[in-house]
Amino acid sequence: MIIHLKSTVTAHEANQLAETLKAFHVQSDGVQILITGSGIKELPSTLADKADNYWVFPNDIQLASKKYRSEKRTVDLGNVKIGGATHNTVLIGGPCSVESEEQIRTSAQLLTSLGLTTLRGGCYKPRTSPYSFQGLGLEGLKLLAKMREEFGLKVITEARDATHIQEIIDYTDIIQVGAKAMYDQGILRACAKTDKPVLIKRGFGTTLQEFVQAAEFVMSGGNMNVVLCERGLRTFETGTRFTLDLCGVAWLQEYTNLPIILDPSHAMGYAYGVPALARACVAMGIDGLLIEAHPDPKVAKSDASQQLDHEQFKALYQSLKPVAESVGYKIV
Amino acid sequence: MIIHLKSTVTAHEANQLAETLKAFHVQSDGVQILITGSGIKELPSTLADKADNYWVFPNDIQLASKKYRSEKRTVDLGNVKIGGATHNTVLIGGPCSVESEEQIRTSAQLLTSLGLTTLRGGCYKPRTSPYSFQGLGLEGLKLLAKMREEFGLKVITEARDATHIQEIIDYTDIIQVGAKAMYDQGILRACAKTDKPVLIKRGFGTTLQEFVQAAEFVMSGGNMNVVLCERGLRTFETGTRFTLDLCGVAWLQEYTNLPIILDPSHAMGYAYGVPALARACVAMGIDGLLIEAHPDPKVAKSDASQQLDHEQFKALYQSLKPVAESVGYKIV
Amino acid sequence: MIIHLKSTVTAHEANQLAETLKAFHVQSDGVQILITGSGIKELPSTLADKADNYWVFPNDIQLASKKYRSEKRTVDLGNVKIGGATHNTVLIGGPCSVESEEQIRTSAQLLTSLGLTTLRGGCYKPRTSPYSFQGLGLEGLKLLAKMREEFGLKVITEARDATHIQEIIDYTDIIQVGAKAMYDQGILRACAKTDKPVLIKRGFGTTLQEFVQAAEFVMSGGNMNVVLCERGLRTFETGTRFTLDLCGVAWLQEYTNLPIILDPSHAMGYAYGVPALARACVAMGIDGLLIEAHPDPKVAKSDASQQLDHEQFKALYQSLKPVAESVGYKIV
Amino acid sequence: MIIHLKSTVTAHEANQLAETLKAFHVQSDGVQILITGSGIKELPSTLADKADNYWVFPNDIQLASKKYRSEKRTVDLGNVKIGGATHNTVLIGGPCSVESEEQIRTSAQLLTSLGLTTLRGGCYKPRTSPYSFQGLGLEGLKLLAKMREEFGLKVITEARDATHIQEIIDYTDIIQVGAKAMYDQGILRACAKTDKPVLIKRGFGTTLQEFVQAAEFVMSGGNMNVVLCERGLRTFETGTRFTLDLCGVAWLQEYTNLPIILDPSHAMGYAYGVPALARACVAMGIDGLLIEAHPDPKVAKSDASQQLDHEQFKALYQSLKPVAESVGYKIV
Repeated sequence: MIIHLKSTVTAHEANQLAETLKAFHVQSDGVQILITGSGIKELPSTLADKADNYWVFPNDIQLASKKYRSEKRTVDLGNVKIGGATHNTVLIGGPCSVESEEQIRTSAQLLTSLGLTTLRGGCYKPRTSPYSFQGLGLEGLKLLAKMREEFGLKVITEARDATHIQEIIDYTDIIQVGAKAMYDQGILRACAKTDKPVLIKRGFGTTLQEFVQAAEFVMSGGNMNVVLCERGLRTFETGTRFTLDLCGVAWLQEYTNLPIILDPSHAMGYAYGVPALARACVAMGIDGLLIEAHPDPKVAKSDASQQLDHEQFKALYQSLKPVAESVGYKIV
Repeated sequence: MIIHLKSTVTAHEANQLAETLKAFHVQSDGVQILITGSGIKELPSTLADKADNYWVFPNDIQLASKKYRSEKRTVDLGNVKIGGATHNTVLIGGPCSVESEEQIRTSAQLLTSLGLTTLRGGCYKPRTSPYSFQGLGLEGLKLLAKMREEFGLKVITEARDATHIQEIIDYTDIIQVGAKAMYDQGILRACAKTDKPVLIKRGFGTTLQEFVQAAEFVMSGGNMNVVLCERGLRTFETGTRFTLDLCGVAWLQEYTNLPIILDPSHAMGYAYGVPALARACVAMGIDGLLIEAHPDPKVAKSDASQQLDHEQFKALYQSLKPVAESVGYKIV
Repeated sequence: MIIHLKSTVTAHEANQLAETLKAFHVQSDGVQILITGSGIKELPSTLADKADNYWVFPNDIQLASKKYRSEKRTVDLGNVKIGGATHNTVLIGGPCSVESEEQIRTSAQLLTSLGLTTLRGGCYKPRTSPYSFQGLGLEGLKLLAKMREEFGLKVITEARDATHIQEIIDYTDIIQVGAKAMYDQGILRACAKTDKPVLIKRGFGTTLQEFVQAAEFVMSGGNMNVVLCERGLRTFETGTRFTLDLCGVAWLQEYTNLPIILDPSHAMGYAYGVPALARACVAMGIDGLLIEAHPDPKVAKSDASQQLDHEQFKALYQSLKPVAESVGYKIV
Repeated sequence: MIIHLKSTVTAHEANQLAETLKAFHVQSDGVQILITGSGIKELPSTLADKADNYWVFPNDIQLASKKYRSEKRTVDLGNVKIGGATHNTVLIGGPCSVESEEQIRTSAQLLTSLGLTTLRGGCYKPRTSPYSFQGLGLEGLKLLAKMREEFGLKVITEARDATHIQEIIDYTDIIQVGAKAMYDQGILRACAKTDKPVLIKRGFGTTLQEFVQAAEFVMSGGNMNVVLCERGLRTFETGTRFTLDLCGVAWLQEYTNLPIILDPSHAMGYAYGVPALARACVAMGIDGLLIEAHPDPKVAKSDASQQLDHEQFKALYQSLKPVAESVGYKIV
């Protein structure tokens, strides 16, 4: 249950009520909000004269649900807003991993030349083998920060586990919670305590219900700036790396109020399929795309097969513009 | 291995060679063609002076492969051609099941009013329970044939099993091999002996490799008019009915030479998601869409939840046109 | 709903009632039984004075449900009974495909030497490629029949599609409906019209609900001699061929009244894992095992990697006996 | 590649070699060992006269592989050893969550009364909703430690994320890395630095290859006391909670040298199926079982449906003994 308290209730009083009810207490748009589990279907009697409004839910998708808030939330990524009434589809590009200053600067130049705003690049790589390249770590974060200063781009990178989440929060503009880390409460609870945008990727074995509940961890802790990112399910099909779940995207658009960014690069796993898939994504009327691009994919230290080269990225950008327009969106 | 025989080799002689080699023998575009398993990597010595050209393959996707024939095949659906250089996306509409003459005529009128060409409607329903509505059978086929005569539409319906495949071939213009029947060699081998177009749906538990090999059953028997139809995989996600595999579509576009039609209705299972998904499909540059529409979905005898009503179908059609144009295609 | 009619109702009258109600009518253990869809929750008024007893169900698992009949059904395989109170685990062995008279006789001798009763061997192979070995067909059926005569074994083989189902019924003692054919109503309805035992394999993409409903097709047509066979799901894991679903077996044991036979050979796909898996299956207290064994697996024309050689089969048999005893069963 | 250095090479020198080669360096059984990625197929020339022996591998399963070490590793759980030549199947029992001192003491008494050695109980619950019971945290750890002192039992509990891994290491005897946390390098790297046994659960969307590579993270950091735990995959089947992958267990037995413990409780999700599944697991010849049991399952704060009550647990224990004996193992 979500309860909006009357404006006469102070933050301090709201907090005490929350403790009594074992509820979450957040402030949003100037309103004191309490959130209990969805098992609570009737307004607690202690709140009878303190509640302004309340909502009951069939399950624990509450703050993120259309039932609570029918219009899509707006999230400000710094250089650009998405969601709400913006009809923006933000094209976030960059390499799988930050590998060197030269490489990431070339990537930043690519985005700048196209008028794009947001640079991606992995620093802590969630590799499944200890014997693979593990990312540059803090050094990579510093390179991203340097690109932000030089080019005015906003940067996004992934937290691998809770041991370095504070670094990620400190150095980046958008915090990415990766597919393998999205159940990590150490990360999610830390994200709840900042007000920076948080992009949560759906795990490849994660249901839609669980996926949105990961967002509830962040939102119930007070940070409403959450973006959902679908990046492919692990299915029996091995001809492609994963299976991008656009049916799931339609479900998210129907039931949740959060902006949605799609990652066709990881889903497909092969560069040849990324452009057509990206066009499919954009035609759904989405809020953003994450596309891996590398100055020279064949020497990339991770995910070599799925990264576009920079010419392919430019061609993709050109081809996306009319598709976005055909559904009333624009690529930014 | 596919072997093109020299023009001096007669059909009779080609047939004898095929028997000796335990190979398939077909004629296509005036060429005598032999097809062996892909395990054969060197031209059999008996063919040394009879072969004009030959192709070896890493697996049993042969006649359908881009390696054999790099341009997409054209399939003539009767009122419209798809594939090849046509850049047509055929929008096939109609109800899940043919239920009555009035119902199917209303559907035919809808298509005609929009200038569309091809009517779908199930007659033999592959229901998983014996206690559900099983379709009108032959009576339904006759209603479809009647609509063809009245409206000049082409009709497509599904063969459920081999016991009625000849009826399907006789009464319809396009033979649909359903997702549950696509391993059915009784059906596939019968389809190989006609020259009518055959639309093969991918099973929900079927790999891409197996899917295209089903087409090879038809093609190696002599019928090259095959269209592939993706309609969703069965995955762990139950928020939607199936998971439409657009990564797989990108794979099919890369590796096969067959036209591709998509069925977002069955994949999604809920009408609310069909329009956005259909736009995603069209943005991939595909050859057709199968969309379920019913004059009054809430009384439909099967798949009530996923069928659009006729107003929704018209709105969908209008919204698809600019998306198709944005990728150089047109809805027909 | 299942309705047991009073003994005063004649078969003819029962049949007319079934037509009026669009219900199935079968006779079993001397009782006239009507079966409607499970949507019917109240006894139709026309049956008020004709029904002896009736059962309502939450879904279309009816004749096969424990709710209708709590004790497990007994199925007579000819040389041995399974299910009921027998506590028999029948070990069915033989090659993937019947390849030659010598090969199948060696297999028959193996079974006979161990005192086993039932020989398996494929004749119509449901291969996914037209270019693979497709089985000996009718010739294979005749070889199986010959082994029956020579050795007194019962034989089981698979129907691939409806075009040859009558041959299968005529030549074999147990009719196998394969994993790829289990939605095939042409096959299922033909099996309903015989009284021979029918072993239905679960499709690798088939839910438990759909699986048991395939049995309902046979049972509602009058043949109660149905055995369920789990043989592995297709999942994301590719280290093994399929994933044997023993959780599903526990579910079947809880909710259905049908005997259960397991096929670890197809599930595993590799001979090395078959013995340990077979022991796991037997420890669940099941009614049978299907194990592929070939006199010389490395030259087998299909499924070479998963077939045991005859020494391995004998060793497996010896190891299964104490496991069966430990759960109160015996290998027969 | 794994390289055993000659006994003349000091630990210090080995460490320097590791740095030069960007290899891992561990000491095990008195041998200095270097481990590089599996891409290295030839002994680096700098090691030509320093290597005693070396092994090359087709993939990054190295320290855990049978190819490197054919006999199963022994892991000492404190009160009992598993693996190696012990033929012990340790039955670990206890509640899903530690809820109160009374509840966990009742659980400890149950185990003690049966002569069992190891108590499980969750303290940091990896719930997918922020609105569910999250576990007692440190308070729970202290209760487990108290039971250890009172009853002489060893205790195992799960690390949810890296923020509390040190507490888990300090308070428990066996560190459990949960299914949702098994990619968490913050946890895995901390486990590598202790010598306590580490039980790694397979993620429900995790391949066997990735699963064993998680063990490599711990082993390459120096802790060889790793146990693998299969607990079910997420598949399309929803009749049961997950699908226990015993084919995968056969694969692990064939290719890895690590002890294997199975968790049928989480796989099944329903108490009714746990005993039969547990017997199946034991019949495979495994090193342990994790079984959830609660003094009063219907009031459990998590996983109520799958926990056995104490009478059921005792009955299960009695039924497992003969099954274990039938395959040469004993329940401890």
